Amino acid sequence: MAFCREVGTPVQQFVTRSDLGCGLRGLHGEAGVSANSLWPNLAGQKRDYLAKQLKAFRDQDRVDPMMNAIVQSLSDADIEALAAYYSSLKP
Amino acid sequence: MAFCREVGTPVQQFVTRSDLGCGLRGLHGEAGVSANSLWPNLAGQKRDYLAKQLKAFRDQDRVDPMMNAIVQSLSDADIEALAAYYSSLKP
Repeated sequence: MAFCREVGTPVQQFVTRSDLGCGLRGLHGEAGVSANSLWPNLAGQKRDYLAKQLKAFRDQDRVDPMMNAIVQSLSDADIEALAAYYSSLKP
Repeated sequence: MAFCREVGTPVQQFVTRSDLGCGLRGLHGEAGVSANSLWPNLAGQKRDYLAKQLKAFRDQDRVDPMMNAIVQSLSDADIEALAAYYSSLKP
């Protein structure tokens, strides 16, 4: 799929990693702007908020079957990288 | 408090209602852009996502003690109005 190609910087490559990036980019768009009205835009969102929510989904403190599955194997460092990446995008 | 004044359109007045608006505007900013890195920006967020999350907080399907308390008395119509308002703001 086009949005799963590896591109650009190491962080962009991380986000496009096939085991992780396809899920997140499919849900939340190429540039952090979701195509589905039920899925939030992430571009420009608060970094600490994004990290907190990713940890909550991983640890199942926030319940969403799709998100819980997609992020279940993330390390804290992975989460910090993703939060930094999405928060850096222009909304 | 300055951000609790009633202003503008009926929807803006709704959002600034003292029993509801002060809480939400205090958390998420005058224009939907939060001052706290742990609280998400709401301006320009997806309308259906906002409504879903407000309902989840109200019904305690998503747990956050502050949000659960602030939105506990909202009707579905209140929630739809809030979601429409915040989604209409420029991020």
